[in-house]
Amino acid sequence: MTQTEQVLAAIEAGMAESTARWMEFLRVPSVSANPAHLEDCRAAARWACGQLEAAGFAAALRETRGLPCVVARNQAPEGAPRLLYYGHYDVQPADPLDLWRSPPFEPVLVDGPRGPRMVARGAVDDKGQVMLWLEAFRAWHQTVGHIPANITVVLEGEEEVGSPSLEPFLTANMAEFAADAAVISDTNMWDIDTPALATRLRGVIYIQIDLKGPSRDLHSGLFGGSALNPINALTAILGRLHDSEGRVTIPGFYDGIIPPSAEELAQWRAIGFDEAAFLGDIGLAHPAGEAGYSALERLWARPTADLNGIWGGYQGPGSKTVIASEAHAKLTCRLVPGQEPGRILASIKAWVGAQLRTIPGGADATVTFSGEGGGPGTEISMANRLFAPARAALRDEYGREPLLIGMGGSIPVVEMFKRVLGLDSLMLGFGLDDDQIHSPNEKFELRCFRHGMRSHARFLGALSAGW
Amino acid sequence: MTQTEQVLAAIEAGMAESTARWMEFLRVPSVSANPAHLEDCRAAARWACGQLEAAGFAAALRETRGLPCVVARNQAPEGAPRLLYYGHYDVQPADPLDLWRSPPFEPVLVDGPRGPRMVARGAVDDKGQVMLWLEAFRAWHQTVGHIPANITVVLEGEEEVGSPSLEPFLTANMAEFAADAAVISDTNMWDIDTPALATRLRGVIYIQIDLKGPSRDLHSGLFGGSALNPINALTAILGRLHDSEGRVTIPGFYDGIIPPSAEELAQWRAIGFDEAAFLGDIGLAHPAGEAGYSALERLWARPTADLNGIWGGYQGPGSKTVIASEAHAKLTCRLVPGQEPGRILASIKAWVGAQLRTIPGGADATVTFSGEGGGPGTEISMANRLFAPARAALRDEYGREPLLIGMGGSIPVVEMFKRVLGLDSLMLGFGLDDDQIHSPNEKFELRCFRHGMRSHARFLGALSAGW
Repeated sequence: MTQTEQVLAAIEAGMAESTARWMEFLRVPSVSANPAHLEDCRAAARWACGQLEAAGFAAALRETRGLPCVVARNQAPEGAPRLLYYGHYDVQPADPLDLWRSPPFEPVLVDGPRGPRMVARGAVDDKGQVMLWLEAFRAWHQTVGHIPANITVVLEGEEEVGSPSLEPFLTANMAEFAADAAVISDTNMWDIDTPALATRLRGVIYIQIDLKGPSRDLHSGLFGGSALNPINALTAILGRLHDSEGRVTIPGFYDGIIPPSAEELAQWRAIGFDEAAFLGDIGLAHPAGEAGYSALERLWARPTADLNGIWGGYQGPGSKTVIASEAHAKLTCRLVPGQEPGRILASIKAWVGAQLRTIPGGADATVTFSGEGGGPGTEISMANRLFAPARAALRDEYGREPLLIGMGGSIPVVEMFKRVLGLDSLMLGFGLDDDQIHSPNEKFELRCFRHGMRSHARFLGALSAGW
Repeated sequence: MTQTEQVLAAIEAGMAESTARWMEFLRVPSVSANPAHLEDCRAAARWACGQLEAAGFAAALRETRGLPCVVARNQAPEGAPRLLYYGHYDVQPADPLDLWRSPPFEPVLVDGPRGPRMVARGAVDDKGQVMLWLEAFRAWHQTVGHIPANITVVLEGEEEVGSPSLEPFLTANMAEFAADAAVISDTNMWDIDTPALATRLRGVIYIQIDLKGPSRDLHSGLFGGSALNPINALTAILGRLHDSEGRVTIPGFYDGIIPPSAEELAQWRAIGFDEAAFLGDIGLAHPAGEAGYSALERLWARPTADLNGIWGGYQGPGSKTVIASEAHAKLTCRLVPGQEPGRILASIKAWVGAQLRTIPGGADATVTFSGEGGGPGTEISMANRLFAPARAALRDEYGREPLLIGMGGSIPVVEMFKRVLGLDSLMLGFGLDDDQIHSPNEKFELRCFRHGMRSHARFLGALSAGW
């Protein structure tokens, strides 16, 4: 029996305990977007610290400008590869709460069409994925006595609010994070039987737009026809965000985009992605994106502009004949490699102002922007040193070759690790498209959890062989 | 001393008691839009019943399909004119609560630039205005022993939600409401020194638009570029509500409009309305309405379309990269004489559907409409029999001729009284444009309250002379 086989046997024997630990982690409502959950976030960090210590790591909570990072290090054999493992202990807000079938922070294992699944906020994003390597570390440590890699762990608590403190923290402590490469588990498999490695990630920028008009709420009869209506104005502006072909109208939005290579496009075509089924799962039948591109291009290689929230005026029962004094919206754009986040944020601001000036009375409105942030899209080189052992581990675990894919979601830390620490990242993820991350009833299949732990354990074993 | 002079003296002597009764009325949070305040609405109705009994009326709460009406009748000298007094005991919701300087249902007299003013939800609309004639009735009853008119009072409790029960109630009890004309106090003076009589009222229609797209909230990275975003779609639709000249784009919206007469336009020009000052009071400098019309035409004789509320997705602190499954908006249109409410509601619905079909993926969205209602704009004939005594009463009280004006707001009951009961209405109102009705810190100047009571008392006296 090889060391890896011993570790895999230990993982099988310890499934119940691993699941119980995972549920402990999920019970902590570590919602970083809501200041009321600050203490819960710190509790989640302390819990993860304890887990790393149990896996043989020296671990500590390290203060940042915001929520603390968990930083941990192990002792490995001389010459072993140096890896930086990244994850996050914070989760998205759980609302709308009334759409959850069970309370979001009371994890439950329920039967699904593919066996048991864990339902809870953070079940997969990112607590479930973090558990995969925490448990693999623990199994290597307890079975073999060491982990065959020099590992530094950094677990942050602000990923869901754009990681505002991570970069200053990394920059201030760069020497601690020197490594050969980074490992990140925050992505999806192709499907439950087919692992995937991501070679392309979209970036994201976000901005809140606040438009103020009259100094107070007004009666729409006494003032309608003379006074600027901020909700009318905001919808007039944001209603122009796309043209009739689904293209974003912000000037310069598409400048500099690096299209996918012919090889990537050929791979994506070969995948045989079924957009009808993809949309059917969420009750839709017609693609809503940009005309002239395939589904996978629209999801992986084209930028988007999505309003994530809008509000103003009266939202209660019945009618209220008011002209509200303010209106608000939250906008995010998914970016692809070649687009510059700062330039696009500046373009959005200029564009909103220019649209406002075309609206009768718009000159009186004041627009303010807040919560700006984000990062660019990223390409991950297939020449990355971790690719070969990762492909081998996944091939051995699943009995098939992993697909090389793009990712529609954004993992800004990938770009940050490259820029700040000079590290390439390996995306070793085990989520599924229907996991409902950021939505009510987020779940993670127990089957993905099991194969995910085993894949991480195999990857560590493959590293010791192939480095 | 004439009877009218005796009554005016009694009003002067009783100011403190009148004010105290007014405050009692204002303390009842009779918000008809919110089912949680149903019992408060009934309490306000019972309170008004007691007041009418104290003024010599036989009064009762009468059940309707919704909130009850207060109906009351007095005993008057033979041959006296028969008048139907109308008001409403319900008030608008008080939110946004955080903008109130004192609690909305704890009335306070505070010093203002024009003397003391009462601050409370309903201070003027319509509890304060109803108090004016309640107190005039009481003073006539207690001083002279009778009121010189055969009066039927109908006070409803659903004006702020579109009076859904009033018309069925009137229709079922038409004989009780036979009268020579109606008197309604729910309108404004020209300014604090200049009374006004309205000859033209805008109508209003309202509708809520609910747009549903995907079956659940989605991650904007995993689905953005493929899945329909309902907030994007709703803003794209509603953003087309006006053209660049401020004209409403709904087909047929302007059909059939009866323009003001040359005489009305001449009167309005002579008023010398200062739109810059009007807008300056609410922090604006530029008119926002339709191009090509004077300010008073835009406010009194042109229709509008105002979004009163919009909501969807994430509205909390920070960012949330979600594609929400739903988006919602509340729309009202002010209508002018000649526009047909039912036809315009149908046009709005058809237009929303047509716009949606132009949006990529829009075919998958479902739009539903709710809360539809409203009434047309109304012209009030100057040949109305109550005009002469009303002009005399106002001239005597203020020492100047009342202005004949239009009204931007809607009093659908005026149209309903004409259509159902065949009655012309006299608008005898004492509000001011800056009273902040429907807004935080609604107020009514004590000076308006005093002259309003006196004017109503004089009007009743003038009736006995001039009928």
